[in-house]
Amino acid sequence: MEYARPIARLVDELTRLPGIGPKTAQRLAYFIVRMSSEQAHRLADAIVQARENTRQCSVCFNFTDVDPCRLCQPNSGRDRAVLCVVEEPKDVVAMERTRAFKGLYHVLHGAISPMEGIGPESLRIKELLARLQGGQVREVVLATDPNVEGEATAMYLARLLKPLGVKVTRMAHGMPVGGDLEYLDELTLARALEGRREL
Amino acid sequence: MEYARPIARLVDELTRLPGIGPKTAQRLAYFIVRMSSEQAHRLADAIVQARENTRQCSVCFNFTDVDPCRLCQPNSGRDRAVLCVVEEPKDVVAMERTRAFKGLYHVLHGAISPMEGIGPESLRIKELLARLQGGQVREVVLATDPNVEGEATAMYLARLLKPLGVKVTRMAHGMPVGGDLEYLDELTLARALEGRREL
Repeated sequence: MEYARPIARLVDELTRLPGIGPKTAQRLAYFIVRMSSEQAHRLADAIVQARENTRQCSVCFNFTDVDPCRLCQPNSGRDRAVLCVVEEPKDVVAMERTRAFKGLYHVLHGAISPMEGIGPESLRIKELLARLQGGQVREVVLATDPNVEGEATAMYLARLLKPLGVKVTRMAHGMPVGGDLEYLDELTLARALEGRREL
Repeated sequence: MEYARPIARLVDELTRLPGIGPKTAQRLAYFIVRMSSEQAHRLADAIVQARENTRQCSVCFNFTDVDPCRLCQPNSGRDRAVLCVVEEPKDVVAMERTRAFKGLYHVLHGAISPMEGIGPESLRIKELLARLQGGQVREVVLATDPNVEGEATAMYLARLLKPLGVKVTRMAHGMPVGGDLEYLDELTLARALEGRREL
């Protein structure tokens, strides 16, 4: 009996969250106890609302509160001929922050990983194929993560999509902007050299 | 418009918590969206309950759901002649984990810090003096933090309490168990030497 019961229960719930250990949970719990009642209710309500009012867009499978999502809606002004395929909703957020992509997205909700028992059938690949049926899509940009699972997924999709006559591209590998060349791994440097461009 | 609205709102609320930046808030928000509805409601409810059903014990000022708290209740089996004075409720948790202290606590809710404008009158010092009126307390252990504010608070309290005829002690300074001597600062080593004991 170290904590008062409501605090013990809150610490317990908070430690279920990813990356929240007992120390962080304790710090958060004591902060919440000292919040105004209104703030605590607002936080609790935001949790319930996010859970209850968010679903997957029936077109791109990104998380959304309206279906189809704001990007997939006909009047969104996006280029419907280009699809960017990403692993997770958070990757859409990262791509949108660049303001460099004007097309639509397709969220796979994972990557192929035989180690974790995730095969192509666990991902939104069937749905991606269905979207290409219309013939409206000219290019599919594969923007899965630059790691083993992401590369495997990109390779799998490339082989699957090319026969459909659609242009399939992969995000470039190379030196991250602002990095130090000496700290880059050999594979990244080799890919950067391979993809060099004339100035 | 990078996030769906309910997710944006949750990220916003989560970043108000201490130590939670935008990246962590995003990770937590996407985790919460994928939780079962029951789990999300349980988390939200734990937040509201912790806020609404926790108050300060009217005796020791630790956070509690019953007043007086379980430790201060007459049948708790604790030694009512020894008071351990700490800065924060989390310090009670730390002390209780040692199972080495059998007395009662007094939570100051802070330490004297002229830099932050926290004077003795902002702390539960008046209430500590009131607890000593009964004459039941033989010893007050000062367990404020071993930093500038904590030391200043301990010195202040020692000067205040000694004239009342109560024994005032301070937690020992010295080498932390399991540490490396070579990495200890000079002040800690000097205090450890000063407080050496014959074996």
